[in-house]
Amino acid sequence: MSGEPPVRLGAGLPVLGMVGAGQLARMTHQAAISLGTSLRLLADTAADSAALVAPGVELGDYHSLPDLLAFSETCDVVTFDHEHVPNEHLRALVDKGIVVRPGPQALRYAQDKAVMRAGLSALGVPVPAWAPVADGGDVTAFAARRGWPVVLKAVRGGYDGRAVWTVSDAEAAADVVARAAAGGTPLLVEEHVALVRELASVVARSPSGQAAAWPVVQTVQRDGICREVLAPAPGMDGDRAVAAQELALRIARDLDVVGVLAVELFETTAGLTVNELALRPHNSGHWTIEGARTSQFEQHVRAALDLPLGATTMTAPYAVLANVLGGADTGSGLAERLGHVFAHDPGARVHLYGKPARPGRKLGHVTALGTDLAEVRHRAVSAAAYLRGEPG
Amino acid sequence: MSGEPPVRLGAGLPVLGMVGAGQLARMTHQAAISLGTSLRLLADTAADSAALVAPGVELGDYHSLPDLLAFSETCDVVTFDHEHVPNEHLRALVDKGIVVRPGPQALRYAQDKAVMRAGLSALGVPVPAWAPVADGGDVTAFAARRGWPVVLKAVRGGYDGRAVWTVSDAEAAADVVARAAAGGTPLLVEEHVALVRELASVVARSPSGQAAAWPVVQTVQRDGICREVLAPAPGMDGDRAVAAQELALRIARDLDVVGVLAVELFETTAGLTVNELALRPHNSGHWTIEGARTSQFEQHVRAALDLPLGATTMTAPYAVLANVLGGADTGSGLAERLGHVFAHDPGARVHLYGKPARPGRKLGHVTALGTDLAEVRHRAVSAAAYLRGEPG
Repeated sequence: MSGEPPVRLGAGLPVLGMVGAGQLARMTHQAAISLGTSLRLLADTAADSAALVAPGVELGDYHSLPDLLAFSETCDVVTFDHEHVPNEHLRALVDKGIVVRPGPQALRYAQDKAVMRAGLSALGVPVPAWAPVADGGDVTAFAARRGWPVVLKAVRGGYDGRAVWTVSDAEAAADVVARAAAGGTPLLVEEHVALVRELASVVARSPSGQAAAWPVVQTVQRDGICREVLAPAPGMDGDRAVAAQELALRIARDLDVVGVLAVELFETTAGLTVNELALRPHNSGHWTIEGARTSQFEQHVRAALDLPLGATTMTAPYAVLANVLGGADTGSGLAERLGHVFAHDPGARVHLYGKPARPGRKLGHVTALGTDLAEVRHRAVSAAAYLRGEPG
Repeated sequence: MSGEPPVRLGAGLPVLGMVGAGQLARMTHQAAISLGTSLRLLADTAADSAALVAPGVELGDYHSLPDLLAFSETCDVVTFDHEHVPNEHLRALVDKGIVVRPGPQALRYAQDKAVMRAGLSALGVPVPAWAPVADGGDVTAFAARRGWPVVLKAVRGGYDGRAVWTVSDAEAAADVVARAAAGGTPLLVEEHVALVRELASVVARSPSGQAAAWPVVQTVQRDGICREVLAPAPGMDGDRAVAAQELALRIARDLDVVGVLAVELFETTAGLTVNELALRPHNSGHWTIEGARTSQFEQHVRAALDLPLGATTMTAPYAVLANVLGGADTGSGLAERLGHVFAHDPGARVHLYGKPARPGRKLGHVTALGTDLAEVRHRAVSAAAYLRGEPG
């Protein structure tokens, strides 16, 4: 981060602004309050999850450089709830002397999957075999070498709310390629990794280069959506867990990440492969609010303001998070169901994001903590299912 | 709470408003966010601790019934950051159908020390020997029976920022009585209790009558200001600890308290005596943010909204809180000192209230957690001292 202007440290903390006001910003705001500050937000609408609970909300469009500039001028440091701000705008902010953390160079790796795959390969980080896709022929050629099925991924964006498609033959591949091309969505093709399970290694890094890693977690996905996070990843080989942390710390350093970095990993019989990067607080780290001495949200604030990072030790042997996804009947009665969950499990830690229910949408999460993984997992999952409006 | 109107439970939680926007409201707002809601605030000024971090802030005077009414009409339930709202106004709100928790009858015991002492005596709760004071003669008569020194307390309010005076002779007593009379401050006189230490038993109770108690803590006061809270109270006899919790739970039930009740206790060689009551989250419960599964702030919200109460089990064998009080040099550089504290102790949990520094003012607190009480206490106290601007 050399060459960036110094951030003043006065009677109060520097003003931290976050572009985007979803649940990540909401939970970051909670953490910022403890540090004596209040997050400034650039929100799409006043009904955004974080905009509902914070003052200092600016409404604006993160695609608009003037909106970003006007917002940034009221902040000492700017950080992000998502990776959708156009990279050229981020560079323009930096050119204007605005402190952007993480910076545009680092954020590119979360914005463009081809850049990410190529960058990680150049660092010697294991990634799935992949190739760019210009047309359907590129997919069949890749599959001829690697075998079907293959995974098609949107390099940026996506369509129909999706960005990943597993296809088993040339015809299905051609269909995705045609629809992506029609929508202007560039694709890449990847081998379908025969994974044992999915893991995440969440770390944080400050501009001064200090770094900290939380225990590696297992994530349980269904239909491409994270349902559960088990901390620490159960039954994991100790050397491999350390390797996963070191891998994430190395990526953070080599890509000059500032703030939280979540590295999503595939565990295979052969070892670890990097699936995705997120340069922000991440669903796989929500359990740290109660499960670790310092949460990923406070850590992100500390990193963005170049304060020393906090301890990442766990507060219980196991912490399990279960996401509350919108179901068919989640819309009404959520508050009433909250009462039932609290009555049933006084130790359940519930976080609701204040978002209107829509099927499949992440409306909140539940964290359970304890010493018996099976019991802790059952508690978290059943509380989340109940909140969603599912029987039992 | 019979006869009060039902509070609607819909898609979202009922709207909870808090009169007063100090650090208690600030930390309650943080807790409310997790439950999917946002605290509405009636603040004196936009610079109040909680007003800095919450939307939905109404500026107004809590002495003014019209201000209270206008605020309350935007809330489903009204609760309090302090006990200074005139009781007749609270009763007027109830008469208008507003749900006030805790209610005026219960709040009287925190608003008027004579009512509190008489009420507790009527319940058979041990309190120091006391008598009302009409003039200096009442004090000397009391001292003739009980011996000097005696303690004079403002029944309501106080003067010169104080509400408690320990006096050793008739002359000193006459001076306090004269100055209190000049300021219209009614007094009572109490025996000076030969205490071993001060304790606090913090509990919560919901309108449905559910109640929960946190472990009894020791508080360390200097110059009448709480400096440290040790949880649980070290070396405490188990039976006596249970008796302290039962005492607080009984007071909560018999006074029909809703929300958090902090019972400040004197421990003497003979047993326990009640010193003060607070019907709101209290300094002696701040350690619960990290030190207990459910914090007093979340519990207060849950109680006020009649949600089932959460588990009060501790998350570590010991939690120690140290208050950050304004010192001569606290004004500038607090943020810089925060960096040093975090570098020195990555496990220190710091809460800053966003308030301008003034000598003696509570600006924040530090909580340390661990298994070795002496080490935990040293960490909390030294971090708070450093933040205050004191050497080492």
